[in-house]
Amino acid sequence: MSSDVSETVEGACAKARVGRPPVLAEQERRQLILEAAETVFFRAGYGEATMEEIARVACMSKKSIYALYPDKRTLFACLVNDIGCFSERAARSLPPAPSAIEELRTRLLTLAEFSLSPRLIKMKRLVISEAPKSPELADEFHNRVIRRGSAYIAESVVRLADERGQPIAHDEMKVARFLIGAALSDLHISLLFGEPCDVSYEAVVHKIDMTLDIAVRGLFA
Amino acid sequence: MSSDVSETVEGACAKARVGRPPVLAEQERRQLILEAAETVFFRAGYGEATMEEIARVACMSKKSIYALYPDKRTLFACLVNDIGCFSERAARSLPPAPSAIEELRTRLLTLAEFSLSPRLIKMKRLVISEAPKSPELADEFHNRVIRRGSAYIAESVVRLADERGQPIAHDEMKVARFLIGAALSDLHISLLFGEPCDVSYEAVVHKIDMTLDIAVRGLFA
Repeated sequence: MSSDVSETVEGACAKARVGRPPVLAEQERRQLILEAAETVFFRAGYGEATMEEIARVACMSKKSIYALYPDKRTLFACLVNDIGCFSERAARSLPPAPSAIEELRTRLLTLAEFSLSPRLIKMKRLVISEAPKSPELADEFHNRVIRRGSAYIAESVVRLADERGQPIAHDEMKVARFLIGAALSDLHISLLFGEPCDVSYEAVVHKIDMTLDIAVRGLFA
Repeated sequence: MSSDVSETVEGACAKARVGRPPVLAEQERRQLILEAAETVFFRAGYGEATMEEIARVACMSKKSIYALYPDKRTLFACLVNDIGCFSERAARSLPPAPSAIEELRTRLLTLAEFSLSPRLIKMKRLVISEAPKSPELADEFHNRVIRRGSAYIAESVVRLADERGQPIAHDEMKVARFLIGAALSDLHISLLFGEPCDVSYEAVVHKIDMTLDIAVRGLFA
């Protein structure tokens, strides 16, 4: 199977050499390398991934890769960064919601769509596997993706308390983590373990609505 | 550093050969092998762990290991099983609590102590890393440890509803997962990522109490 993949990649490389001008803009090269790195890291795991294989999948020389990314670790950190940035962009581009509770619901759903996606789950699995050897990568990912997700939900918690004119007895970041954990953690853990679970839109909305039903009544009882 | 460890182990093996009768009961041999396997898996990762290294750490011949565990996968599955069984024993040996809410609190705390322990976190990290290649191991672990944890909490949720004479609008397993996620998931994720976080008794109790404060009011509002 590996040789099939190899032939396909080489065929694509040959076509690319015919159809595409030989010099790509640096930004385009970076993007191609990141995509190739993602493919190789997900397929081989971080430990077994090599710069050679990434070069092959990107249809570039190893020299071109090293010119932009001095080593595998840097490449991995840039990939984590790239995925984290996507999250931030998508999350901030939502239209304003008419009420705080609708905003909170939409934001939890946005966070779910992002953090339960196959791409993020694979990335988290890689980062978790690598955490003992490369705590700085796990740290980067945790700050970029997880901490920002909580802050994003906490904003709506503050808006909700303002709108109701009732203060909340708990810190908004703690409430945000409570809500994210209550609504998403069992799906999250099941996906990390590769367990079959229902992550359809309806199932996720059902979990978020149950969470908000219990939590909002509990917070403002 | 590796040779230091090696010398220490060999020293210990030499001492063991002098001080201990040469034939161990099968149960004792199994236990020694599982302990050695745990050490090696946690140090090297599943992929790089070898039966040779496990034999060396257990101070046994490879033949003795293979006589009890035909391959690395079986050994790993037995280790997962061993850790899962510990959970069950500890969880069922608690004295009865005077009220359902106290029982729920104690059970959440028991679950936290177990599932946030360094041993379980390392084990989960291993199982998650290995999940794409060995879904059956992840499945075994998920069933043994995670699903049983939810069922254990769900029992107290049912007792709580009975005691209050008020039915709960949601399925008890869903409520259990809600509570576990709300109380423990951010600590759990931080530990999996190797992030520094406060898992002191006080910090965990604080999270559980906040969760119960919000959830119980929300459930019975």
